[in-house]
Amino acid sequence: MDNKTLATPITGPMRLVLLDRSNPVFACYLVWMSLLVLKMLCMSLLTARQRMRTKTFANPEDLRLPKLSEVRFGDAHVERVRRAHRNDLENVLPFMLMSLAYVATGPHPMVARLVIRIGASARVLHTMVYAFIPVPQPARTLAFFTTFLITCFEAIYVLVCCIKYI
Amino acid sequence: MDNKTLATPITGPMRLVLLDRSNPVFACYLVWMSLLVLKMLCMSLLTARQRMRTKTFANPEDLRLPKLSEVRFGDAHVERVRRAHRNDLENVLPFMLMSLAYVATGPHPMVARLVIRIGASARVLHTMVYAFIPVPQPARTLAFFTTFLITCFEAIYVLVCCIKYI
Amino acid sequence: MDNKTLATPITGPMRLVLLDRSNPVFACYLVWMSLLVLKMLCMSLLTARQRMRTKTFANPEDLRLPKLSEVRFGDAHVERVRRAHRNDLENVLPFMLMSLAYVATGPHPMVARLVIRIGASARVLHTMVYAFIPVPQPARTLAFFTTFLITCFEAIYVLVCCIKYI
Repeated sequence: MDNKTLATPITGPMRLVLLDRSNPVFACYLVWMSLLVLKMLCMSLLTARQRMRTKTFANPEDLRLPKLSEVRFGDAHVERVRRAHRNDLENVLPFMLMSLAYVATGPHPMVARLVIRIGASARVLHTMVYAFIPVPQPARTLAFFTTFLITCFEAIYVLVCCIKYI
Repeated sequence: MDNKTLATPITGPMRLVLLDRSNPVFACYLVWMSLLVLKMLCMSLLTARQRMRTKTFANPEDLRLPKLSEVRFGDAHVERVRRAHRNDLENVLPFMLMSLAYVATGPHPMVARLVIRIGASARVLHTMVYAFIPVPQPARTLAFFTTFLITCFEAIYVLVCCIKYI
Repeated sequence: MDNKTLATPITGPMRLVLLDRSNPVFACYLVWMSLLVLKMLCMSLLTARQRMRTKTFANPEDLRLPKLSEVRFGDAHVERVRRAHRNDLENVLPFMLMSLAYVATGPHPMVARLVIRIGASARVLHTMVYAFIPVPQPARTLAFFTTFLITCFEAIYVLVCCIKYI
């Protein structure tokens, strides 16, 4: 009995672990998720920059260093970045979680990678036209709905795959 | 030496991969997570609908198409949907992440599926009585605390399972 | 042919499943994630307590039981807890997702566990000095940037590992 015959049953039943970096789709997901997390963290820095530039601080303990006398709210520049940041929480986090679930159902690799790339890129674009350089509509709406519809597609794909386990 | 004896040690040490769709509990988690993500995305559409109905837009660049002259804030109908949406961010996202961790610890399948189903359904109910048809209390509070306590239960279960790795 | 020779090729190609509780780094991640989720849920209770103490309710249907006549907004104590809670959404959720991705790339176990422990502890500290006992700056800023930089480190680590799959 040679080694070859022994090896067959070992590798035979071993199925690909989908949530593992040996799966190129999951590796692709990891890269784009990292980029989106870095982008989201930038929003905090952008808010801080706008707060300093416009001297709008919301907490009394923040006033000591810039030598200000009172807290302020509702500055238009600060609020714009905060709205963009909140929009990220509302859309990027669900997109990330949904993409993870989508990858876990083992979709077609090429479609999955395309979907992740477009969905993530659209959110980077959304931040650009919302918080960096306000651009006339429908730039923001288009970027918004690209990721929105991709997240919907992923959710429906997962539902179709696993609905019997509801 | 027959194949049977050879096969035993191969399938023997192979443990079920918990975060894989071959695990019915994880498949159940995927289904309910997709439903919750779709529900959360609906909140964005609901906000947009209320903004258009009450002509309350927060960004100057959104005023061109509906031919309005100034941004508005604090409309009661828009703010109600926004509060419901924020409540989702505060509770649904932690519930999703916690359930994933809970499934990863390999809980009893029947208990786990029950917990996921009730926790997710309660959040759908919460949105109904908060953003769609405002219902007298304690409807919203009950729906809120159902998912809240389930998330706590999952967190404590995971802590008990893995506390030695702290 | 003895059992030992047979056993070798079986355990040989079996790679550690990273997102499994048999991986100590993942178990450590699960513990700290559970603690962070419990901490985040506490913020909801803290908000509710401040709302009751200052009689600041945002929804008309919440006024019946405490026998109040109108909704109120913008109480300083309520808003402080809400800002702390929002800061959690903006930072703890990305930290959790990023740490999961980081663990999935199979980093050095000791470094990974250290990074997770410090990042999570800093957020507990952040809540303390923000929502419980307001402390003069830079306490809050230091706690904030500890987790912020750790999340950046994890994101860059994952990018370096998997950038070719972009």
